[in-house]
Amino acid sequence: MPIGIETRFTFHLPRPTDVLLQFEAATIPEQAILSSKTHLSDSQHCARVPAQDDIGERIWIRAEGDFEVAYEAEVEPQRQLPDLASLKRLPPHEMPGEAVEYLFDSRYCPADRFQTFVEDEFGGTDGGARIAAIRDWIRQNYQYVPGASGSHTTALDTFIERRGICRDYAHTLVTLARASTIPARYVACYAPGVDPPDFHAVAEVFLNDPETPGGGTWQLVDATGMADPAQTAKIGVGRDAADVSFLTSFGANDFKSSSVRVRTLDK
Amino acid sequence: MPIGIETRFTFHLPRPTDVLLQFEAATIPEQAILSSKTHLSDSQHCARVPAQDDIGERIWIRAEGDFEVAYEAEVEPQRQLPDLASLKRLPPHEMPGEAVEYLFDSRYCPADRFQTFVEDEFGGTDGGARIAAIRDWIRQNYQYVPGASGSHTTALDTFIERRGICRDYAHTLVTLARASTIPARYVACYAPGVDPPDFHAVAEVFLNDPETPGGGTWQLVDATGMADPAQTAKIGVGRDAADVSFLTSFGANDFKSSSVRVRTLDK
Amino acid sequence: MPIGIETRFTFHLPRPTDVLLQFEAATIPEQAILSSKTHLSDSQHCARVPAQDDIGERIWIRAEGDFEVAYEAEVEPQRQLPDLASLKRLPPHEMPGEAVEYLFDSRYCPADRFQTFVEDEFGGTDGGARIAAIRDWIRQNYQYVPGASGSHTTALDTFIERRGICRDYAHTLVTLARASTIPARYVACYAPGVDPPDFHAVAEVFLNDPETPGGGTWQLVDATGMADPAQTAKIGVGRDAADVSFLTSFGANDFKSSSVRVRTLDK
Amino acid sequence: MPIGIETRFTFHLPRPTDVLLQFEAATIPEQAILSSKTHLSDSQHCARVPAQDDIGERIWIRAEGDFEVAYEAEVEPQRQLPDLASLKRLPPHEMPGEAVEYLFDSRYCPADRFQTFVEDEFGGTDGGARIAAIRDWIRQNYQYVPGASGSHTTALDTFIERRGICRDYAHTLVTLARASTIPARYVACYAPGVDPPDFHAVAEVFLNDPETPGGGTWQLVDATGMADPAQTAKIGVGRDAADVSFLTSFGANDFKSSSVRVRTLDK
Repeated sequence: MPIGIETRFTFHLPRPTDVLLQFEAATIPEQAILSSKTHLSDSQHCARVPAQDDIGERIWIRAEGDFEVAYEAEVEPQRQLPDLASLKRLPPHEMPGEAVEYLFDSRYCPADRFQTFVEDEFGGTDGGARIAAIRDWIRQNYQYVPGASGSHTTALDTFIERRGICRDYAHTLVTLARASTIPARYVACYAPGVDPPDFHAVAEVFLNDPETPGGGTWQLVDATGMADPAQTAKIGVGRDAADVSFLTSFGANDFKSSSVRVRTLDK
Repeated sequence: MPIGIETRFTFHLPRPTDVLLQFEAATIPEQAILSSKTHLSDSQHCARVPAQDDIGERIWIRAEGDFEVAYEAEVEPQRQLPDLASLKRLPPHEMPGEAVEYLFDSRYCPADRFQTFVEDEFGGTDGGARIAAIRDWIRQNYQYVPGASGSHTTALDTFIERRGICRDYAHTLVTLARASTIPARYVACYAPGVDPPDFHAVAEVFLNDPETPGGGTWQLVDATGMADPAQTAKIGVGRDAADVSFLTSFGANDFKSSSVRVRTLDK
Repeated sequence: MPIGIETRFTFHLPRPTDVLLQFEAATIPEQAILSSKTHLSDSQHCARVPAQDDIGERIWIRAEGDFEVAYEAEVEPQRQLPDLASLKRLPPHEMPGEAVEYLFDSRYCPADRFQTFVEDEFGGTDGGARIAAIRDWIRQNYQYVPGASGSHTTALDTFIERRGICRDYAHTLVTLARASTIPARYVACYAPGVDPPDFHAVAEVFLNDPETPGGGTWQLVDATGMADPAQTAKIGVGRDAADVSFLTSFGANDFKSSSVRVRTLDK
Repeated sequence: MPIGIETRFTFHLPRPTDVLLQFEAATIPEQAILSSKTHLSDSQHCARVPAQDDIGERIWIRAEGDFEVAYEAEVEPQRQLPDLASLKRLPPHEMPGEAVEYLFDSRYCPADRFQTFVEDEFGGTDGGARIAAIRDWIRQNYQYVPGASGSHTTALDTFIERRGICRDYAHTLVTLARASTIPARYVACYAPGVDPPDFHAVAEVFLNDPETPGGGTWQLVDATGMADPAQTAKIGVGRDAADVSFLTSFGANDFKSSSVRVRTLDK
């Protein structure tokens, strides 16, 4: 079933400033972009570059003064959704080079420090069952509290304070998966049901589906439980939130407003 | 002038364990591998995968008990070495997608936090001159003290404590470059002159050489001053040291010994 | 010259909650309390206890619902104000027990990590001249930016980010003094000239005045430059801001409003 | 039953350096010092000052070259040991001023960040029962691993990594007690049964014994389970390990050797 997305955000640049934007649903096999319309205010420069792992695009602009981004799209997710618990951990020596980098620590995901914890808490599980156990542990121990975390908050901070938003839930899942030697990445996305409505973030783990020939595949997991993977439109992926912000400003920037509306389209 | 490399390290795995190795000079245009010989102890599995940015290879092994790695090579670096101060900062909207990810924060390089510092300290400089000023500032303010830092040490820690080894020097340069909107990555390498002899690490920054058509190129910079870029053999690159360790063990590992010998070969 | 203080703050406690208050100018030899009036909303319990180093009092209340604190006072500071640069560092073996604890690291002041920095940057100075050099360095390198820091911000964070408020300036001065083996504590205070008007914080260092017989004395130093020590009324002291908040709530607390007005009284 | 203590440690000071020592069992009502002998190498200066909360003494020395400390004592602990679970939390407004400061965050004990965790994990308990539950939780989730932590390790680090030594166990107990609004301090001590034999550290919490008239009393709790409070000789107390090191050097110091022997004396 397709989903409809309407996004709008505005900001003010006091001086000519470079800004990196990434807010459009990615054109990738697992989701069909039925329609799409992007409006950007005028800028001195504007250039598109492929985003990480060739999933989606980043837009460089250089502009000054008030700037508005408006985006509308209809997207039909078509991804395979095997039962998570049935998936197997890929033996490391079978992991392809592009998955290996998602085993390593990143800015907000200091996975190496959680090796004792995952062994103690989830020692009896492996592969998809391990990921399901991690997801359930987060859901049980964390409270969803907008405003409790900020742009410096790491998975370590959230693990201590037990409160956060989708970004923090995704960072924790990514961290505990990597500490379990399962490649994991951060996914910026749109999904209906996110409350309050906003840009959303989930995790993706690299696991082996015994039903499918060949190595592993990336599987969406939402530790907040708000997004249905069958109804989620990916924007982009990265090591963690440092890589896939909808707006990264290389200079002063007054953020003014944003609204995100995502709904299921009955067809 | 070619350089000769001899590396040997041994470790003990109490149980069957997955280990990731990356220690060979990379086969890339900027350096010719004149000869190369790698010896690994027997293992249950052994697989090679391309390393980050397709520079070099990582080797997965699964093994138990005593393990030895021995490597010998002759490498002839052939890289372009323009004058650093003459290089220009690429305007962000001209940066290719693969350079953009090296603007972001990583595990050991929290660049966003240093924006005020770089502006205050290096505000009058830009591009290659900015990088040269950063390199000189590090060299002047840091002391090279083996043992003063560890595997958790970030660029922030080193900036406070002003002491560290090549890894810490490279992390600081990468961090301050990114805070200056200049893409920067971490480079594991071999070089003569490193004292005490060991695996070495330097930084690479993405700058524009006005003499060369097309976008930017990566330029080696060693904040420790020990390695000559004309005599440096790259092993691999990454966001920071989390990505390019010569040995990453996914389970218990008793490290036994290592020796690294690098010298200039007169021909 | 006396100063007049008017303070008012209100908060709401959704449930019966213990709250610790410390907002009154301390009754100590170095400042005469000419008049003082404290109004507190009704509470289930209310008890006064001596505050740290017997400087001022803390007030425990247990209350529920809306709570208001109103305080008015006239205070005449009478402290000795020797020239800072003339003061000497007390040799450690002459430091009294109660000063020694102010050499140690505290929550927001990880002094041990700055020993190399203070030696490199201020190596040619000692005693009061060292403190003056530290104060000037902070004033030159920091920007006073309300909102740039928060309740978790340590002196380490501020040293990196170079921006903060009076609390952060005081934490940095305390940290760099302790790293120089000079006892230093954090002082909550009122002072005219603080802009925007608010509770203020400065540092106090323990130095020896060669003109005065006997050991050392505590000397006020304001790294922000906004407060004149001759016009400052101390509320309380502590290792750092963790010890002397005007309001510490042991449970949920909605802070509503505060106003602080301090002025010089012409007499 | 008395215990016998033999301690010896040596270090080398390359230059004239101030050093603070605290290694003798404190002369306090709860433990009788039956005999005591302290030997210190010659020094330029040597001065004793009362230690924190007037428990024990600190010794300042200024010396150069090789230095040896040797200490022998027989101590008979005589403290009250009520059943921990029977003790009550003192309502905050009944806490004396000198206990209040042990509610606040300190260098290694960032208690404020654990308020959600203690409420979630120990919400059904209070007072001594809460402390017993915290102690048991630590014992169940932590592994005693000498070498896994260092001098920068905070309770937050240990909570993440789940491994450490007595210092880390005590820091965690202190942190979780304070997060529960129970004053808690760090205690350096000697006790038989510590394995490997070394200086030991435990926590002390301030609770109310309903059997005893008047406010609260400090009760020893050892989260490692190695020390029996009836057989423990206190050296000193503090906010955390930053305050009660057996050796704090204000300058370069090569630590050479130490041995600690503690045994029960049959009489």
